[in-house]
Amino acid sequence: MPELRKDPVTDQWVIIATDRARRPSDFVRESVPIVRSSAPCPFCPGSEANTPAEVLAYRNGSHANQPGWSLRVVPNKFPVLGIEGALDRQGEGMFDKMQGIGAHEVVIESPEHALSMTELSEKAVEQVLWAFRDRVHDLKNDRRLRYVLLFKNQGEGAGATLEHTHSQLIALPVVPKRVQEELHGSKKYYKFKERCLYCDLISQETKASARIVMETDRFVVLEPYAARFPFETWILPKQHRSHYEDIDAPHLENLAWVLKSTLRKIDKVLERPPYNFLIHTAPLQDAANPYFHWHIEVIPKLTRVAGFEWGTGFYINPTPPEESAQFLRDA
Amino acid sequence: MPELRKDPVTDQWVIIATDRARRPSDFVRESVPIVRSSAPCPFCPGSEANTPAEVLAYRNGSHANQPGWSLRVVPNKFPVLGIEGALDRQGEGMFDKMQGIGAHEVVIESPEHALSMTELSEKAVEQVLWAFRDRVHDLKNDRRLRYVLLFKNQGEGAGATLEHTHSQLIALPVVPKRVQEELHGSKKYYKFKERCLYCDLISQETKASARIVMETDRFVVLEPYAARFPFETWILPKQHRSHYEDIDAPHLENLAWVLKSTLRKIDKVLERPPYNFLIHTAPLQDAANPYFHWHIEVIPKLTRVAGFEWGTGFYINPTPPEESAQFLRDA
Repeated sequence: MPELRKDPVTDQWVIIATDRARRPSDFVRESVPIVRSSAPCPFCPGSEANTPAEVLAYRNGSHANQPGWSLRVVPNKFPVLGIEGALDRQGEGMFDKMQGIGAHEVVIESPEHALSMTELSEKAVEQVLWAFRDRVHDLKNDRRLRYVLLFKNQGEGAGATLEHTHSQLIALPVVPKRVQEELHGSKKYYKFKERCLYCDLISQETKASARIVMETDRFVVLEPYAARFPFETWILPKQHRSHYEDIDAPHLENLAWVLKSTLRKIDKVLERPPYNFLIHTAPLQDAANPYFHWHIEVIPKLTRVAGFEWGTGFYINPTPPEESAQFLRDA
Repeated sequence: MPELRKDPVTDQWVIIATDRARRPSDFVRESVPIVRSSAPCPFCPGSEANTPAEVLAYRNGSHANQPGWSLRVVPNKFPVLGIEGALDRQGEGMFDKMQGIGAHEVVIESPEHALSMTELSEKAVEQVLWAFRDRVHDLKNDRRLRYVLLFKNQGEGAGATLEHTHSQLIALPVVPKRVQEELHGSKKYYKFKERCLYCDLISQETKASARIVMETDRFVVLEPYAARFPFETWILPKQHRSHYEDIDAPHLENLAWVLKSTLRKIDKVLERPPYNFLIHTAPLQDAANPYFHWHIEVIPKLTRVAGFEWGTGFYINPTPPEESAQFLRDA
């Protein structure tokens, strides 16, 4: 069972994989090669027995864990957290730990062995977004879980280890630090202004327009003012909503188009770079609130994070967001 | 002039390089190759004209910017922040920015074209540590500067772009987020216990011994309880001191030995991995305080940071610190 440990200085939680520990020789000149298409793909139809049993699938009448699906969600074969057991919070002298309880699931986005979400139909992308929603609703019933991060690692450089297009979710027994910072910042702003920070941001940015990539009736895509990374891109719903899982069908349909268009623009301008995207939403067990506003962050993997960034949490971005917005608008 | 911009949600500052912006084609399949020894090295003696004029050098009577030195500190040729001008804090609607005022310097650690600090004599390592101290004392006189990060990127994988062994410093007009978190956490602990958190940590860890790598009369080297990265290693002075630059000669001499030994152990166990190290010290303009305790963090670059880490600030460490401590102790 992995262990969650808290840094006594910064209150940052870390997942320590205590049982399948990696020895020094595992790291030496390590590169995680993507499983190439020549190898049998465990996510393609017919390989259902090579994954853990599915927790969700969209099928037309076929049997569970058999071919005939359009999307499958399965537990990760090498999960970073386990779903069984009790949290068991404990002290260890001045330190704090708990059992690594949580969920780690893989969304196999399509039966086709496509290499990227941009190769899927809009309908298939919409299905992925539905699956995100359905899984969060289900995981919410487990009261031990406080947060679900929905994310995608696209390409080897962004941490993907399998080629077949997929995304992931990790459900955690604590609200992670980065999300707490966003919650804290947006709550502070709400207290001061009695308005949602993100709603204000959308209104100011659409007026200023310099950092806008594209816009529909329901969503705005923009480069954030203090972008940490070159071509960092956010997708925000215009309608205020704190929780992603409360999204309705018209928004979901439009989001599929917006997300696919955004990723295609990034692919075009940066020649199919590796990237991560993730959904920031309010904590799982919290009621809807007026200050947090769910959104998607897309981070192309273009620069290296080095000593200065680790030491300060201060990022150096070599491309002003006004310029990256222009490139993406024109694509 | 670069710009400092603040994220309105998280209050995180970002350096945006507005003038020497990188276009998309600069990133495409970018790898920053280290300048190999066959190319003329700008840091070797005889190449002094190829660096900006030195701000500090240890010499035996030779002229500035000429050969005959044992260590040189020069401004970075491509600084991320500029030293000229006023901070000029401004709003931009709901956003905050200021001019990118600061210093970015390179410590050329030796006239020898050594590839790593571990190849230097202990005396040479000690000189580097003196240079860190001397530069901080000098930069403290500039009241616009609030923090100095001293750090090293070793190897291409850790962000180094030149082979000749060197370290760097970046002086900032704000106290960076990661340091603020450490200050905040250690202050909170001090308020509660009236003791320094790091002093308590040293006492508990030396007693428990499982995470100790090595120890002298003056320093302890350990793997932190909630290590974010495999083989993350901290070097802590046993004597409480908030500011690195207040270090005395006996500590400095011992630190040279401890630092070199630690890096050698890491080189041995992980076969000369890329790594970053950095010094965390109290803010430049603050008086000495009883709650913060300067220290060095060494982070070997072994794993990839992907979507989950960016999205949560939550790290997954595949090697328990008790095991990495054992490997390093035995090396």
